[in-house]
Parts: sequence; structure tokens; C-alpha cells
Amino acid sequence: MEKIKRTVFFVSDGTALTVAALGNSLLSQFENVEFTEKRIPFLNNERSAYDAVEKINQQAQKDGVRPLVFTTIIDQHLAEIVHTANAYCLPYFETFLAPLEKELGVSSLHLAGRSHGMDNDTYKRRIDGINYTLAHDDGISYKDLDKADVILIAVSRCGKTPTSLYLAMQFGLKVANFPLVEQDLQQERLSSKLLEHRAKLFGLTISPERLSHIREERRAGGVYSHIDTCRREIFAAEDLMDKSGIAYINSSKKSIEEIAAKIIQIKKIKI
Amino acid sequence: MEKIKRTVFFVSDGTALTVAALGNSLLSQFENVEFTEKRIPFLNNERSAYDAVEKINQQAQKDGVRPLVFTTIIDQHLAEIVHTANAYCLPYFETFLAPLEKELGVSSLHLAGRSHGMDNDTYKRRIDGINYTLAHDDGISYKDLDKADVILIAVSRCGKTPTSLYLAMQFGLKVANFPLVEQDLQQERLSSKLLEHRAKLFGLTISPERLSHIREERRAGGVYSHIDTCRREIFAAEDLMDKSGIAYINSSKKSIEEIAAKIIQIKKIKI
Repeated sequence: MEKIKRTVFFVSDGTALTVAALGNSLLSQFENVEFTEKRIPFLNNERSAYDAVEKINQQAQKDGVRPLVFTTIIDQHLAEIVHTANAYCLPYFETFLAPLEKELGVSSLHLAGRSHGMDNDTYKRRIDGINYTLAHDDGISYKDLDKADVILIAVSRCGKTPTSLYLAMQFGLKVANFPLVEQDLQQERLSSKLLEHRAKLFGLTISPERLSHIREERRAGGVYSHIDTCRREIFAAEDLMDKSGIAYINSSKKSIEEIAAKIIQIKKIKI
Repeated sequence: MEKIKRTVFFVSDGTALTVAALGNSLLSQFENVEFTEKRIPFLNNERSAYDAVEKINQQAQKDGVRPLVFTTIIDQHLAEIVHTANAYCLPYFETFLAPLEKELGVSSLHLAGRSHGMDNDTYKRRIDGINYTLAHDDGISYKDLDKADVILIAVSRCGKTPTSLYLAMQFGLKVANFPLVEQDLQQERLSSKLLEHRAKLFGLTISPERLSHIREERRAGGVYSHIDTCRREIFAAEDLMDKSGIAYINSSKKSIEEIAAKIIQIKKIKI
């Protein structure tokens, strides 16, 4: 069956990141449609609104079918301009803002660009989280582990670094991560420096097949990526975590966002 | 004027990250309401749906007013269970999925947890981006700059590292960043190793007052954070970038997301 094709615009007075994430969660439900995505961020004056309309109309003409347009535009006047385009609009703010005002019994500000507002405390927290996490990546340092919000452990290439950085970036958490190395696995116990902070420890695991695949892409054809090595390391790591009473999750089929959200949920971390 | 108080739940069959970002963009429009946020991620079976209802109802009783509940739940049966809670629901999927099916002329999958689906290519791109960016943070290496998607330059503490990591994490971009040091500023030109890649260069600047504040938090009371030092460095850096024809933006009042989105827009980077 041939796929239907459709162009999608994500139009926002801010970064357009949220509306794109949102739109994608809807579009992912349509398997037989091939979507081409375009973003129009920072739409915050009449000129950029008319430019957007022109761009959308040109696309409609080129495609022979009207594009989908997901919007998050607070300014009603600008939103109305965008809605004159030859497109099927899915306007988030217009749909929910008025009912929300009614429910809350107060009117809203209708001010654009507030969703990622620069708030000094949040900014500082994120920067501190990132700095801590970079300074405690991949076993670099055992210093200040009492300040960590969570300490990740896993064998090499399970996704410790991206998960740690995501937690720092997104939630301002301080994350340390340590590789489970041959010595840990052979001794069947973690170093006492980590066990001191048992409540903060959390493990990642992965299917041996996927680990082998990831390692192969990095360093092909060696013992390091061999399926037997991966199998042995993963079994030993899971065994060690089971014995030490350390919770872990399998990262094989999860995105970084999902792993991060699971860790927060399981460790009941305040964010 | 005393603030109205209201509890908000973000309920999702996925990470609840998108629905929270979305909900927050709406809630930020209400200045006179103090929202307390709670997340319920990974709601993907009847039991977790009924648990959510109970949690919401308990909160309603405690608050004496029904909570707001933003949802992104694809499974209609589970969504209906959640909607039985004593709450004001803002259901994203239910609102937009049916009209979208009609517009596209096809029915959707109604499958949960697809929005962050683990796609091997995307995962690999992100990991490669993160690894490259970590290996090229803060002037560590001039190697492989031809592989960079963008090269950020700025004086110390303008937000190079978080911006670089965000671009890598979110979009799988390879980002190198270099501090503008005393030598660059005095010579009024960049090193030739960077100028070779002029098309990839992009600058960050900041207000001297904000820079001084940020530096003060890191290392208090020295020349480094003194307003005169900051003023001199910023003026020299902007002058250098102007003369070299390098575009830059002021990061003072912008979130990391906004800086990243601006860079992508200005440099017309394919994402």
C-alpha cells in the first residue's frame, strides 16, 4: 500500500519544540502516512505571521493538498493571521486556553514566549546539574557523591552518559555514573565507596544482543563486542545488582527520555 | 491579591514530559494562580489508571477544589477511566486525534507509548552527537572540526557547554565549543584553526551584569567576576565577532532551549 504524503508545520511563538513533540506524538499514530516536518519558531510579529502564511500556502500548492499546521501561538491576532493559511490547523492554545480561563475563573495574560521563560533559579540548577554530572561521568570522581541525586551503574555502553546528562539538563539533577568493570564483576561486589551511597544507586542493563551491536559500531570485531563477552558481563552485572539489592531497568527498547522518567519514578526523585 | 491555589496532574502513557511541557506553557499564562504540579507517567494498564483516579480524588478532597488533569493517553478505555476522576480534564489526544483521522481520511493505531519510540538511527545519532560534543567541549580539541554541525564561541560562562549539550542531546548535532580567551581578545582575531571553519562559527554573548552575576556565583570577589572585567571582555568579544562577520545572539534572557532553537534557525541547520 502506497503511503499518503502530507507536509506538517509546527508553528510557535517560542522554540516550537513543545508543539513539535506534541504533534509528533499524534502523528506517530498514523502508520500509513509519510509526514514531512517543517518548523516555524519565534513567530512573534505580523510580518513573521504573514511570512508563515505564504510559506504554508506555497507548500499547499506544491503538494496539491493542504498541510497540517500545529500551532502554539498565544497572541490571538497573530494566530488569526496564521489561520488564514490554506491548511488544516490544530491550534493548541486556542482550544484549551478559554476553557481553562473559565475553569479557573480568571483571565490569562495572553503573553507570548513564556513557556521557556528564563528563570534564574532554574537556570542555575540546570547549570549546576550539568557541571556536577560532567565532573562525575564514567567514574571520573568519587568526590562529593553525597551531593548526587542519583548514581547510575552499568557495564560499558548501556547508556549511562546520555541518561545522566539528560537528567541534569532536563531536571537539574546531579548525577554520577560509574562503569561496572571486570573487577566489580569478578569480585561480585561493588566498591565500598559506592556501597556507602546504596540508596542513591540505580542500575542500567540491556540485552546482550543490543549491547553487542552497539559495541560493534564503536570498535568492530574484537572481544569487547563479542556476544559471549556481552552475555557474560550482563549476566554478572544483573547478578551483582540483584545480590546488592540495587534496582535496575533494561534500556534496550527505551529512549533516553523514557529511561530518565523511569528512574525518577522508581527512585521517587523530587523534580 | 492572594493567589488562587490549584493542583495540576500531568498524566500520560509515556514519560509525561511532553504533556508537562505543554501544560506548563498554558499555565504560565495565569499569573495569579499558584499551581502545584504532579506527574503520573507510564499509565498503561487498568490498575495504574484506577490508582491515578484514586490519587486525583484524594487530592480533590484535600484541596477542596477539583484538580486540573492534562492527559496524553492513547488507549481510549484507560483515558475513560481517568476521566471518571473528580477533576477538570484537558485531554490532548481525545481532542485532536479524531479530527486528525478525519482530515487524513485514515484511522490511527491507538497504540500507546509511540511518541518516544526507540528508533536505532535516532539513538545512534544522539549518542554520536553527545560523544562528539563531550570530546569538543570548552576548546579541548581542534580535531575533526570539519565534522561539526556548529562551532560555538563565547567568553567564559555565557552558556556554551549547556547549549552544546542540548543541541547534541535533542537534535543529535555535533557541536564544538571554544572559549574566547584573553589572547583572542587582545589580538582582535580568532585562531586560524577556527577561522578555517568560519561558516560553522556562531557566537554567544551576554549582558556584562548577568555575566558578572554568574561568575560571582562560581568564584566570588575576584577580578574574574568584576563588572569591569566582564564589560571589557564582552565588548571585545562582540567587536571581534562583528569584525569577523560571525553571527551571535545574546543569551541573557533566554533559556537553553531558546538559544538552541535560535541557533538552528539562524544557521539554517537541518534537523
